[in-house]
Amino acid sequence: MLSKGNSKYLRSLHQNKFRRKYGQFLAEGTVNVLDFISGPLKVIQLYATEKWLTEHEAKFSGIKSEVVSLKEMEKISALKNPSEVLAIVEKPNVTTPDISLINNYVLGLDNIKDPGNLGTIIRTADWFGIKDIVCSGETVDAFNPKVVQATMGSLARVRVHYTNLAAWLGNKPGDLKVFGAVLNGKDIRKAAKPGKGILLIGSEAHGISKTLYPFIDRPFRIPAAPGAGAESLNAAVATAIVCYEFCKTGS
Amino acid sequence: MLSKGNSKYLRSLHQNKFRRKYGQFLAEGTVNVLDFISGPLKVIQLYATEKWLTEHEAKFSGIKSEVVSLKEMEKISALKNPSEVLAIVEKPNVTTPDISLINNYVLGLDNIKDPGNLGTIIRTADWFGIKDIVCSGETVDAFNPKVVQATMGSLARVRVHYTNLAAWLGNKPGDLKVFGAVLNGKDIRKAAKPGKGILLIGSEAHGISKTLYPFIDRPFRIPAAPGAGAESLNAAVATAIVCYEFCKTGS
Repeated sequence: MLSKGNSKYLRSLHQNKFRRKYGQFLAEGTVNVLDFISGPLKVIQLYATEKWLTEHEAKFSGIKSEVVSLKEMEKISALKNPSEVLAIVEKPNVTTPDISLINNYVLGLDNIKDPGNLGTIIRTADWFGIKDIVCSGETVDAFNPKVVQATMGSLARVRVHYTNLAAWLGNKPGDLKVFGAVLNGKDIRKAAKPGKGILLIGSEAHGISKTLYPFIDRPFRIPAAPGAGAESLNAAVATAIVCYEFCKTGS
Repeated sequence: MLSKGNSKYLRSLHQNKFRRKYGQFLAEGTVNVLDFISGPLKVIQLYATEKWLTEHEAKFSGIKSEVVSLKEMEKISALKNPSEVLAIVEKPNVTTPDISLINNYVLGLDNIKDPGNLGTIIRTADWFGIKDIVCSGETVDAFNPKVVQATMGSLARVRVHYTNLAAWLGNKPGDLKVFGAVLNGKDIRKAAKPGKGILLIGSEAHGISKTLYPFIDRPFRIPAAPGAGAESLNAAVATAIVCYEFCKTGS
């Protein structure tokens, strides 16, 4: 049975300030947890139903585990629909990439607030081979349980950094281009794709912050159909199209 | 002040069986409501705060409105974070398009369960000029308040149909191709894009149902980066890339 102290500690990790303080976060759901177990981050402890632990026993040898009931899971889960497993994972120690050394595509996210969108973006970046995402300080925390949930395990592979984007972009070398998604940019299909650069995406409501405009070398847009009614695309959808178009995957 | 009867009626529209029975649904939030007011569907009644009604007065002449407090709004809203306005809208009378007459791209959705994903798909279809979406009976109801919320007004312009997909696809003429997103299909970038066809998308977990396989003329896939870890793309993200690739928008 879960002790009061454990339960309190687990619930504290629903909040960013405690995730920062303790350097740990929660992952929930079978896909997520198994991806963390087989990935590079350290899984500290599992809390799961007896059934789950029995079924997946072979996959987590060496990791401490504790049986919890579904009722107890409801108390410690940060999700609306708790799953059968929850893990405490060590936050990775990431350093914002040195912009002068970048030689592939890196995503820059300015002010993405919706946890589901950020999680989906991390998952999509993983699919298209993007390893680093650099976020403005206002972007939602990647270790927020709802973000972790939406990544479907990809947070075990993609590094997410938080920094002052203007200061970071200010140090970029001349041959590294910043591609910015803006309303009146060039048709994304016709933009040059040099194989490296910063792909900068802003929020749905406000776009890229004005303070970052001076750093955009190549403004682009995703054209709508003539006469289309929608005013904008969802942030995760727009980012996915950008990743698809820039990262030429496939045979 | 909201009467008990009104409040009960509004809450009944959170459920599909009552939306079907009464032929009405709820739209919430300023963007959504204003898009329905200016669109082709009939807005029956508005419930909004005094502040909202005063601010937007010029936009809804002729539509009945009732002042409600934010506290009352919490009771009738289907959303976690209620907005200042909620509208009752008449469900459109749509007939599933005759497949023998299709001469553009139509989305086919098999078993999309997540309301946020369906809403985002409707919004994306609107952006790329797709007018009709034909869904399997297991797909979440497009008039579910969470779907309506995620469409950001696009449900006022995109027609969403529910039918037995196998029976519907069974009547297709030979020159209309079904493009199906499957794991081992042809690279989507290399698929022919004839300007018309059915773009068929399955669920994230299970893909397109086996019973629909015989109808797929052109299987395709969205290639991942070599060595990518993510096992799949979010359904709305995959659909967006499909719409982007097939519907050649822009100059």
